[in-house]
Amino acid sequence: MRIGIIGLGLIGGSIALDLKDQLGVEVLGYDKSDKHKQLAKELNLVHELLTEDELIDKSDVIICAVPVHVLEEKIIELLDKSREDQIILDTGSTKREICEIVKDHKNRSRFVAAHPLAGTENSGPLAAHQGLFRGKKNIICDIQASDPKAVAVCKKIFKSLGMDTYELNSEDHDKHLAYVSHLSHVSSFMLGLTVLDLEKDEKQIAQLASTGFASTVRLAKSSPETWGAIFDKNSKYLAEALEQYIQYLNEFLKIIKSNNKEASIKLMREANEVRRILDGIIK
Amino acid sequence: MRIGIIGLGLIGGSIALDLKDQLGVEVLGYDKSDKHKQLAKELNLVHELLTEDELIDKSDVIICAVPVHVLEEKIIELLDKSREDQIILDTGSTKREICEIVKDHKNRSRFVAAHPLAGTENSGPLAAHQGLFRGKKNIICDIQASDPKAVAVCKKIFKSLGMDTYELNSEDHDKHLAYVSHLSHVSSFMLGLTVLDLEKDEKQIAQLASTGFASTVRLAKSSPETWGAIFDKNSKYLAEALEQYIQYLNEFLKIIKSNNKEASIKLMREANEVRRILDGIIK
Repeated sequence: MRIGIIGLGLIGGSIALDLKDQLGVEVLGYDKSDKHKQLAKELNLVHELLTEDELIDKSDVIICAVPVHVLEEKIIELLDKSREDQIILDTGSTKREICEIVKDHKNRSRFVAAHPLAGTENSGPLAAHQGLFRGKKNIICDIQASDPKAVAVCKKIFKSLGMDTYELNSEDHDKHLAYVSHLSHVSSFMLGLTVLDLEKDEKQIAQLASTGFASTVRLAKSSPETWGAIFDKNSKYLAEALEQYIQYLNEFLKIIKSNNKEASIKLMREANEVRRILDGIIK
Repeated sequence: MRIGIIGLGLIGGSIALDLKDQLGVEVLGYDKSDKHKQLAKELNLVHELLTEDELIDKSDVIICAVPVHVLEEKIIELLDKSREDQIILDTGSTKREICEIVKDHKNRSRFVAAHPLAGTENSGPLAAHQGLFRGKKNIICDIQASDPKAVAVCKKIFKSLGMDTYELNSEDHDKHLAYVSHLSHVSSFMLGLTVLDLEKDEKQIAQLASTGFASTVRLAKSSPETWGAIFDKNSKYLAEALEQYIQYLNEFLKIIKSNNKEASIKLMREANEVRRILDGIIK
């Protein structure tokens, strides 16, 4: 099977590295950035680097791992050019808009809208590594719109990366992801910004920051371009989540200012419930 | 040397376990909770469990590792009862109030105000473990108010746990810690609360939460009692930091709502600066 990957950054590059190990799989690659192409070559991410047209022509499955702000246009283009036996797969972090846009495309059934839930705060081909997806979950959205055979092939590909696949409708996907992923990123980015702003003496951050701060602020190292596009695509649900977050922070600020220790403990006890849910899920 | 530890939770218990390995050190322990005492016995945290008066009587150095809301009273009591050759050391996460309260005590110089910067989201004797402090930093506050000999002994004790000691005045300590530690805890507690509130379907949190969320929300598992007391003692600086944080979040919310991707990317680029400061500091 020939699998062509468009976009050889953290996600596309890591998929490529894992798929290269699969028996009978030939991994073709393309990236529109010359720098990424050069790195992909040096890092030996794929079996063969091609032009985009060559890749489209030669691939049985095309995995489109481009940033979400250019994804829709690219998927439409791929569907337009696709042959009947080709499968097109994306890996984007938002799913509502892409599923809406391709809804009435005559070749819609060749497309599988996927979101492998994995990543790090790093990006680009240099961040790609084997095993990124192992033990993580994959989501396929609006699965009924895809050809069952295409879905089966995609599930098999994700299984080979070490992922189980779950189904969600694209609207629910974006809503839930706003809560459990996009909001954490905003919380972390703004925490980083706040501390950089308040703490004029950078040496003190370096000196006093413990692993707790490092863990909470880790996502603030993420790519602004990647996340700017994701937040833009999911602005409705993210804004809703962010409003709720700010409301809780304001409530807590009021409690802190009035030195109402009992009230602060009560709220933190409720927050502790997150332990019950996370323990046993996240290693 | 006989070192008595009052309070055998995460911090006191972990200090005990490490000190027990030191040649020529006898570790005595006391905890006012019967449950903690029982656990300390079962977990073999100290060489000998004593009554508080026995411990005060027998110890060369007394390490007071009790929660900050009972710390002041306890340190005053220990200073009152202390002999000239005894050293009293605390490990509390806030330092301004304790240093202020003991300022004019006739035995002030026997006290060393320390804060080993280490911890986890877990608490109690069961959370105690060897190596908690290794490679981390210790702060001693208002060092000029302590007898240099007492300071030297304390630095040696922290060195034996694997910590280098830095000096800060107690006011600066609380200000900086509000920024790089206490604020992260609030941000994480409120994130946990928000997601639990928005996400009525707990299974979705379990299903969709990735390592990014787990990392950002980790501190929300921390002890409400411990942190309620710390926030209470450091309410002024924490409120200041929290206000700044909320201001950034409101700014970002406005940007998200207006789908101003350029502005969101600009702010996140600034936040990315935190990488430069943290990389190379936190492993």
